[in-house]
Amino acid sequence: MQTGTVSLEKAVDALRNLPYENLGFAKPDYHRALRKGFPEVILAKGKTPAQVTSIAEHLKSQSDRLIITKASPACYQEVKQSIRSAIYDESAEIITFRHSRKTDLLPGVLIVSGGTADIPIAEEAAITAEEMGHAVERAYDVGVAGIHRLLDHVPQLRKAHVIIAVAGMEGALPSVVSGLVSAPIIAVPTSTGYGASFKGITPLLSMLNSCAPGVAVVNIDNGFGAGYIAALINKAYYEKHKK
Amino acid sequence: MQTGTVSLEKAVDALRNLPYENLGFAKPDYHRALRKGFPEVILAKGKTPAQVTSIAEHLKSQSDRLIITKASPACYQEVKQSIRSAIYDESAEIITFRHSRKTDLLPGVLIVSGGTADIPIAEEAAITAEEMGHAVERAYDVGVAGIHRLLDHVPQLRKAHVIIAVAGMEGALPSVVSGLVSAPIIAVPTSTGYGASFKGITPLLSMLNSCAPGVAVVNIDNGFGAGYIAALINKAYYEKHKK
Amino acid sequence: MQTGTVSLEKAVDALRNLPYENLGFAKPDYHRALRKGFPEVILAKGKTPAQVTSIAEHLKSQSDRLIITKASPACYQEVKQSIRSAIYDESAEIITFRHSRKTDLLPGVLIVSGGTADIPIAEEAAITAEEMGHAVERAYDVGVAGIHRLLDHVPQLRKAHVIIAVAGMEGALPSVVSGLVSAPIIAVPTSTGYGASFKGITPLLSMLNSCAPGVAVVNIDNGFGAGYIAALINKAYYEKHKK
Amino acid sequence: MQTGTVSLEKAVDALRNLPYENLGFAKPDYHRALRKGFPEVILAKGKTPAQVTSIAEHLKSQSDRLIITKASPACYQEVKQSIRSAIYDESAEIITFRHSRKTDLLPGVLIVSGGTADIPIAEEAAITAEEMGHAVERAYDVGVAGIHRLLDHVPQLRKAHVIIAVAGMEGALPSVVSGLVSAPIIAVPTSTGYGASFKGITPLLSMLNSCAPGVAVVNIDNGFGAGYIAALINKAYYEKHKK
Amino acid sequence: MQTGTVSLEKAVDALRNLPYENLGFAKPDYHRALRKGFPEVILAKGKTPAQVTSIAEHLKSQSDRLIITKASPACYQEVKQSIRSAIYDESAEIITFRHSRKTDLLPGVLIVSGGTADIPIAEEAAITAEEMGHAVERAYDVGVAGIHRLLDHVPQLRKAHVIIAVAGMEGALPSVVSGLVSAPIIAVPTSTGYGASFKGITPLLSMLNSCAPGVAVVNIDNGFGAGYIAALINKAYYEKHKK
Amino acid sequence: MQTGTVSLEKAVDALRNLPYENLGFAKPDYHRALRKGFPEVILAKGKTPAQVTSIAEHLKSQSDRLIITKASPACYQEVKQSIRSAIYDESAEIITFRHSRKTDLLPGVLIVSGGTADIPIAEEAAITAEEMGHAVERAYDVGVAGIHRLLDHVPQLRKAHVIIAVAGMEGALPSVVSGLVSAPIIAVPTSTGYGASFKGITPLLSMLNSCAPGVAVVNIDNGFGAGYIAALINKAYYEKHKK
Amino acid sequence: MQTGTVSLEKAVDALRNLPYENLGFAKPDYHRALRKGFPEVILAKGKTPAQVTSIAEHLKSQSDRLIITKASPACYQEVKQSIRSAIYDESAEIITFRHSRKTDLLPGVLIVSGGTADIPIAEEAAITAEEMGHAVERAYDVGVAGIHRLLDHVPQLRKAHVIIAVAGMEGALPSVVSGLVSAPIIAVPTSTGYGASFKGITPLLSMLNSCAPGVAVVNIDNGFGAGYIAALINKAYYEKHKK
Amino acid sequence: MQTGTVSLEKAVDALRNLPYENLGFAKPDYHRALRKGFPEVILAKGKTPAQVTSIAEHLKSQSDRLIITKASPACYQEVKQSIRSAIYDESAEIITFRHSRKTDLLPGVLIVSGGTADIPIAEEAAITAEEMGHAVERAYDVGVAGIHRLLDHVPQLRKAHVIIAVAGMEGALPSVVSGLVSAPIIAVPTSTGYGASFKGITPLLSMLNSCAPGVAVVNIDNGFGAGYIAALINKAYYEKHKK
Repeated sequence: MQTGTVSLEKAVDALRNLPYENLGFAKPDYHRALRKGFPEVILAKGKTPAQVTSIAEHLKSQSDRLIITKASPACYQEVKQSIRSAIYDESAEIITFRHSRKTDLLPGVLIVSGGTADIPIAEEAAITAEEMGHAVERAYDVGVAGIHRLLDHVPQLRKAHVIIAVAGMEGALPSVVSGLVSAPIIAVPTSTGYGASFKGITPLLSMLNSCAPGVAVVNIDNGFGAGYIAALINKAYYEKHKK
Repeated sequence: MQTGTVSLEKAVDALRNLPYENLGFAKPDYHRALRKGFPEVILAKGKTPAQVTSIAEHLKSQSDRLIITKASPACYQEVKQSIRSAIYDESAEIITFRHSRKTDLLPGVLIVSGGTADIPIAEEAAITAEEMGHAVERAYDVGVAGIHRLLDHVPQLRKAHVIIAVAGMEGALPSVVSGLVSAPIIAVPTSTGYGASFKGITPLLSMLNSCAPGVAVVNIDNGFGAGYIAALINKAYYEKHKK
Repeated sequence: MQTGTVSLEKAVDALRNLPYENLGFAKPDYHRALRKGFPEVILAKGKTPAQVTSIAEHLKSQSDRLIITKASPACYQEVKQSIRSAIYDESAEIITFRHSRKTDLLPGVLIVSGGTADIPIAEEAAITAEEMGHAVERAYDVGVAGIHRLLDHVPQLRKAHVIIAVAGMEGALPSVVSGLVSAPIIAVPTSTGYGASFKGITPLLSMLNSCAPGVAVVNIDNGFGAGYIAALINKAYYEKHKK
Repeated sequence: MQTGTVSLEKAVDALRNLPYENLGFAKPDYHRALRKGFPEVILAKGKTPAQVTSIAEHLKSQSDRLIITKASPACYQEVKQSIRSAIYDESAEIITFRHSRKTDLLPGVLIVSGGTADIPIAEEAAITAEEMGHAVERAYDVGVAGIHRLLDHVPQLRKAHVIIAVAGMEGALPSVVSGLVSAPIIAVPTSTGYGASFKGITPLLSMLNSCAPGVAVVNIDNGFGAGYIAALINKAYYEKHKK
Repeated sequence: MQTGTVSLEKAVDALRNLPYENLGFAKPDYHRALRKGFPEVILAKGKTPAQVTSIAEHLKSQSDRLIITKASPACYQEVKQSIRSAIYDESAEIITFRHSRKTDLLPGVLIVSGGTADIPIAEEAAITAEEMGHAVERAYDVGVAGIHRLLDHVPQLRKAHVIIAVAGMEGALPSVVSGLVSAPIIAVPTSTGYGASFKGITPLLSMLNSCAPGVAVVNIDNGFGAGYIAALINKAYYEKHKK
Repeated sequence: MQTGTVSLEKAVDALRNLPYENLGFAKPDYHRALRKGFPEVILAKGKTPAQVTSIAEHLKSQSDRLIITKASPACYQEVKQSIRSAIYDESAEIITFRHSRKTDLLPGVLIVSGGTADIPIAEEAAITAEEMGHAVERAYDVGVAGIHRLLDHVPQLRKAHVIIAVAGMEGALPSVVSGLVSAPIIAVPTSTGYGASFKGITPLLSMLNSCAPGVAVVNIDNGFGAGYIAALINKAYYEKHKK
Repeated sequence: MQTGTVSLEKAVDALRNLPYENLGFAKPDYHRALRKGFPEVILAKGKTPAQVTSIAEHLKSQSDRLIITKASPACYQEVKQSIRSAIYDESAEIITFRHSRKTDLLPGVLIVSGGTADIPIAEEAAITAEEMGHAVERAYDVGVAGIHRLLDHVPQLRKAHVIIAVAGMEGALPSVVSGLVSAPIIAVPTSTGYGASFKGITPLLSMLNSCAPGVAVVNIDNGFGAGYIAALINKAYYEKHKK
Repeated sequence: MQTGTVSLEKAVDALRNLPYENLGFAKPDYHRALRKGFPEVILAKGKTPAQVTSIAEHLKSQSDRLIITKASPACYQEVKQSIRSAIYDESAEIITFRHSRKTDLLPGVLIVSGGTADIPIAEEAAITAEEMGHAVERAYDVGVAGIHRLLDHVPQLRKAHVIIAVAGMEGALPSVVSGLVSAPIIAVPTSTGYGASFKGITPLLSMLNSCAPGVAVVNIDNGFGAGYIAALINKAYYEKHKK
C-alpha cells in the first residue's frame, strides 16, 4: 500500500514561482507571464475603471503583454489617461497595448463565425490569440443556412491547426465544421438572437450536444477564453514533446 | 363603426356539422373524418388500454381511418383482441388498421433524420402521412456532422413539396436543409442524446432559433404532429385554389 | 449492399447556382431570389445600422425584393438615406421597399391574433407574406377568453389555405382555431404579458403542446418566420404537383 | 400613533381551540373538523403505510370524515386491515371511509376536464368535494380543440356556483370557460402529455397566464386542493353573511 | 348510448348575449358588465396610450365601471385628457373612474401582505375589489418572520369571507394564514426581493406547494386577478343558491 | 399517549415580549434589539425613500443600532436629511449610523472573496458583522485560480471562528477553504460574471453542492445575511453554555 | 506597497499535517479526525458497495468515528460483512459504527421538521450531530400550516444554541422559526412533495429567500451537511475564544 | 469587391474523399479513419443492440479501430456474438476491440478526477484516448476539498501536454488545476451527486464559468468527447507545423 504523505519538497516547488502583488482590492499575479507565457488578463466587468487602471499599471510595470476584456468606453478612457499605449476595439470591448509586437506570429488559428452579429465576439477571440503570438485567419458569415459559403472555405478549414467556431441562434456551425476537418474545434456560443435563444443558452446547449467529436465549448460570449485556449493548442505545433 | 353583434346564422353554421358521441370518459368526434379528411387520432399515453379500445371501437364503426399514437404493447394487445385489423409498429409505438388502402398515394413528402436513434419518431411521422394518403420518401442518418451524406440527397430534397426533419442532440438538421431547398420544413426535435440534451429541449430550442426561414417546429417526439401537418401541406399541391 | 459514394455530379449541381458576395463582415446571397423566390432577409438585430445599410445596398442592386426585420428607428434612418424607397412600419419594426408591387396577390393567408398587444408581431407576419406576393386577411383581438368573437370568424377561418395564429399570455388560440378548420396553422408566441409569461415562454410551450393536430410553431416574436412559411404553404395552392 | 402591543387575550383566543395529538412522528390535529368543518387530510406520498395507518386510526377515533390522498395500493391494503370502512379509488389514488354520508349534498360544483387522461385528477377533486358535503356535476373530455363539445355544456356551466377546470397539455380550458361564465374557476394543471409539457409545467404556466379574470390555480395534479377550495366557495352560497 | 349532437338552441343561447364592438385593433366586449357584473378590464401593458384611450372611450359609453391595470403615468395622462373622471393610483399602476360609487359595499374581503414592498400589488387587488362593490380590510406588513404581528390579526382573519394573501421573497404567508382560518385564500406572489427570488418565481412556487388546503394562486404581481376572484367569492355570501 | 394540548402559559410567554409599532404601511419591531441583540434591519429595495426614512425614524427612537441594506443613493439622501448620523457605503449600498460604537469588537470573523468584483457584497457582510459588535478580518481576491494566494492565508484561515466566503463565477472558493479549516463557513454567491453565470445561479448551485462539509449558503448577493449569521456564530465563542 | 511573495514556511505549515492514503480509486484522508475533530465521511451514492467497504476499512483502521451517507441496503450488507460494528438506519440511509460512544454529549442542537415525510432527512442530520458528540432534541411535524404546534415548542426553540429546520413543499418553516429565536438556523430543503415542488427546488428557493435573518441553507436532502455544520456551531459554546 | 462564386473545384475536392455505406437505418462513414485518423464512433444509446452490431460489422470490415460508447451489457452481448474481439468495460460502458495495438503510445495526456464516483467517466475518456494511440496518466480522487492531494500531483500536472479534468458536484477542479499549469484543460462535468447538482448541470455551469483561462468544456458525462479532443491536442506535439 502506497502512503501518500505529501512530500513537502514537491509542494514547495509548486508554490515557489508564484509571487503576486497585494493592492488590497486585488492581488495581481505579475509572474504569470513567465509561467503561462502570458500576463494575467483583467476582466473589466464588475470592476470600477479606477480599479482596472490601478491593476493595469502594476501589471504593465512587470510585463509588456496585457489584455483587458469586456471593457466599457469609460473604462478605456481612464486606462488611456494613465497608460498612453492603450488601444481599444470598441466592438470587441477589448483593450490591448501598443508594444514591440512580435513579427513572427505563428500560423494555424482559424476563426469562423455564423453571422455578422457574432463578429464582436469573434474579434475578441482573434485579438486575444494575436496578442499571444499567433496569426489568425478569419472566415465570417459562413452560417449553416447557406452551407455553400462554408464549403468554399474547406481548403482553409483543412489547413488550420485549431478552429474557433463562433455562432449564436441555433449554434450549429461547430457540428458541421467538425465533420469536415480533423483539427480540434473550440466552440463559442454568442448571445445574439432573440426569443427562445435565451441570451446564448440555445447555442451553448447545441454546441455541448454536438453530434460530432472534436468539439469543446467555452462560456457564452467568451471570445477571450476561446482565443486563449486556441493559442495554447496552436503553440503545441511549434513545440517538441516534453520529456 | 362596425358593430360586431354575433350573426347567429354564422355561429349555427359553425357548429351544425360537429356531432360527437358521449362515452362518459370520452367524447369521440366521429365526423372529423368529414371535416378534416381524417378521423380523430387517439393519444394512448395517459389512457388505460380499456379506454383506448372502447374509443377505437366507436370510431372504427364510423370511419375506416384511425391512428393510435404512443401506444404500449399492452395497449396494442387489448385493441387487437377487439379489432382484428389492428397493426402495430412497436418501434414507432403506433397502431394503424388494415383497410382498403388508397392505391394512389400522393407524392411530395420527404422525411430526413439525423441519426439512427431518431428513426422511431421519423417512422411515426411517416406512417401518419401514409395513413392520410401521402407517399413518403425517407433519407435517414444524414446528420450534419457528415454533411456529404446530406448533400448526396440534394436532388431528392429539391423535389419534395414538404420536408420533415427529425433530429436530436444539437438539432441542426433543419437549418442546413432549409438553406438547400425552397419547400417548407417541419422540424421534429427528439429526446435522444444524454447530458445537456435535456430530453429534447436542446434540439427544440435549436430548431426554434433556426437562422434559416421556412422552418416551423412541433413538440418533442411528436412524429404524429409532423406527419399530420406535412400531409395537410402536401395536399395543397393537389387542390385548386378555393374561391 | 448499396455503396453511397457521393456522385460528384449531383454535388456540383447542388452548389452551382449559389453565388454570393463577400463584404468581409457579411456574405449576402443575392441569388436566393432565384432559388427561393425571394431575396435574403436581413435581421437587423445585432448588426450596426451601417452594416445593415451596406448589405441592403448590395442586395437591392440584384433584386427588387428585400425585407429588413427587427429594425430600430435609427437603423431605418440610415437605410433611408441610402435607399430612398425604404418604408418603415415602426410598430412591426420592419423595413420594406417601394417597388412595382405585384398587383395580383394570391389570396389564402389569414392572420388571427389574441390581443391588441400582439398586433406588432401579427403585422410583421402580414407584411412579410404580402411582400412575398400573398394577400393577407386579418382578424385581430379574437382571444379565447371571448370565444364568441372568434366564432364570428368561422366562415373566414374555414376559407383560408393557411392560418397564422399570434398569441401571448396562455397562447391557447391555435388549439381552439385548429378544432374549427382543416388548414395548417402556424403558431407565433409573443412576449407580451407579465409575471409567469416569462417573455413568451409560456405561450411557446402551450403552442408546442397543443392538443389539436395541424399546428406548428415558430420562435417567440418571429412574425417574419411565420409569414415566410405561410407564404410557402399558400403558394402550393397555385402550383401544380412537381414531377 | 397606534402602538400594536399584542393583546394577549386575542392571542390566547387564537390558540385556545387547537389541541392536537403527539404521535412522535406526526401530530394529527383532530379538532380541525370543528374549526374547518373537516378533519385533516393525510397526504400519503412520502409516508410509510404504517405511518399513514397510525395517523388514520387516531383521526378516525375523533371524527367521521377523513381523506387520504396520493395513496398507493399497498398503502390502502394496510389501512384497510386496520379500518374496515376504508374505500379506495385506485385511479384517483384516494382513500375515503364509508360513513353515514350526508344525504343532502349541496349542489353547485361543476368539474370540467380536457381529456380522458385528466380524469383521475378530476375524480380526486370530485371525491374530495363530495366528502365535504357537496354535489358534483362532471363534464369530461371537453377540451378546447373541439370547442363544440364544450359549448354543448354552456347552460350547465352558467348554472354552477364554482367550476373546477382540469387540463394537461396546453391547459387552455380555464381561459375558454372563464369567458362563458361569471362563477369563479379553480384551475388544475395535470402532468399528462409528453415532450415539452414538462410534467405539467406547461399547463400550470398557461393557467397562471390566463387572459381571462376569475381564474385561480392550484399545484400540478392537486385535485384534492381544487376540490377543497371549491367546496369552501360553494358553501358560501348556503351561508349568511357573518357580521 | 347518448349521442351528443349539439343542440343548436343551447348554442344559440350561449352566444346570443355576447355582442361586442369592432375597433379594428380591439374588440371591446361592452356587455360583459351585464354578464359578469363588471365591464371588461383593459390591461394597459403592451398597448399604446392611444389604443388604451380609444378602448376606454368605447367602454365608458356603455358602462360606468371600468378598470385599467398596469398603466404607466404616460398612459394615464392620455386617458385623462379624454375622460376627465379618470383617477390614477401611481403605486398600484391602476386607473379607475369617479362615478356614483355604490354606498353599500359588501364586507368580507381581507387583504394581508408580507412586507411594505408588496403594498402596490395589494392595493391593485384592493381597488379592484372595491370597484366591484366590496368593502376591503387591510392588514399590511404581517410577514411570517414576525409571527406575532400576524397573530394579532387572528380575530380579523377569522371574520373574513375570503382572504387575499400577498407576499414576495419566500411566499410563506398563505400557508400560515390558511392554518388559522376556514375561509378560502387567494395567494398573490410578488416580484419583490432579489437574488434567487427570480422576480416572483420563488413565492409563486411556494404558494403552489402550500402544505395547507384552501389556497389557490394567481399570476405573479396579478393583484387585479386576485381582487376579481375574491369579489366573485365574497358575492356568494350575499346571493341565494341558484336553482 | 401524550396529548399535545397547547399550554396557554407557554404561548403567552412566547408572545409577551414582542411589541411593535403600526405605521400602516409597516410594523417595525423595535424590541428586536432586546430579543435578538439587534434592531430590525430595513431592506430598502422595493420601498420608497420616504417609507424607508419613516421606518428608520421610528426604529432610531428606540435603539441605537440600525442597518439599511440595498439602499440607493437617493434613498440615502432622504434618510440623511432626517437622521444626520447616517453613513453610506455606496459600493456596498448600505446605510449605518454614527453612534457610540462599542470599542471592544469581538474577534473571530474572517471574510475571503474570490475577485475584486465581489468586494461590494463582501463589504456588506463586513459592515453588518461590525455593526453587530464583531471585528472582521478581510482577505480579498484570493480566488481558486491562483491557489497560492489563498494558501498564503492559511494561518489566518485556521485562526478564524467563522469564515464568510464570497465568490461569483464558478463559486469554488468555499469548497477549497473548507478543506483547510475546521470552522463553519457561510458561502455567499454573487451575481458578478457574465454568460452562463446567470446572475449568480451558477455559484449558488456550486456552493450548495460543495463536496466539503461545514458549508452553508445564503441568497445571491446577500452579504447582510452572511454577516448576520456569522455574527451569531462568533458570539457563541464568547458565551457560556445555556442550561 | 506590500509585496505578497508567498512565505514558504507558511505554505509548508499549511500542508504538513495532511497525509492521506492512496487506494487508487480513492485517497481517504485519515487524519481529518485530528484536524476537523471527525473522520472523512463517505458519500456512498455513486460508489460501488465494494469501493465503499474498502474505503471504510482503511478509515476504520485509523479512527473510531466514521459516517457513511446515502447508503443503500445492499451497500450496508457488504460493509457489515467486513466491519461487524456497522449499524444501519434504513430510513435515513446512514451507516454508523458501534463504538465507545462518548457519554457526555453536548446539549444545544434542536431539529424541527415540517412533516412526517421529512423525518428521514431530519434523522440523517440528527445521527450526524450525535456521532460528532452532540445531544440532539427533536420536534417533528410542526409545519407552518398548524402554527400552534410550533408555538408549543417556543421555550425549547429559545433554549437551543443552533436549530436545524427541515422542510419540503413550500419550505416556510425556517422563516417562521427565525422570527422566534436568536440562534442561528440551518435550513434543509427536502425533496418530498409533488408537482411544482420540483424535487426540492421550491423549498430550496424559499429558504434562500427567507425574509428573516439568521438562516443559512444546505443542499436538498443534505441532512448530513446540516448536522455537521450545526455540530461545529454548537461546539463553539463549549470552547473558549482562540487567541 | 471580391465575388465569392463557389469554385467548383474546391467543393469537389471537399467532397471527393468522403464515401460511406448505406445500411438504410444508418450510413456508416468508413473512411473517417483516413480523414480523422480514427473510425466513426458508435453511440449505442438510442440504438437497438441489433443496429449497433450491424453498424459495427460494417465498420470493422474496413478498419481496425472502433469504439462503441454508452453501451449496455445487453448491447455488448450481442456485439460479442458477432465480433469475438470485442472487449467491454462495464463501468465505463464502452466497447473496444482487441487488435494489434500500437506499442508506441504517445505520452502527454493526464486525467484528473474529483471523486471516486467520477471514475467511470474518467475511464471512458482514458480508454478513448488510448484507442487513439495516446498514453494516459491518471490521478483520481484529487477533489478540491482536500487541496493537498491535488498539490501532490503538481509535477505531474506541469508535465502534461493536455489535461482532462473530470468532476461532479460543484465542478471546481478545472479552475484550480488551471491556475497550476499552462497546458490546455478539457473539463468534463459528471452527473454524480444529488439534490441541486441537477444531474450534472451544476458542474457544467461551474466549468463554463471558470475564472481561469485555458479551460474548455464538453457535455455532461461525455468522457468520450474529452478523450477524443485531448488526443487531437496531444497529437499536435508530435506533428510538424503544416505549411
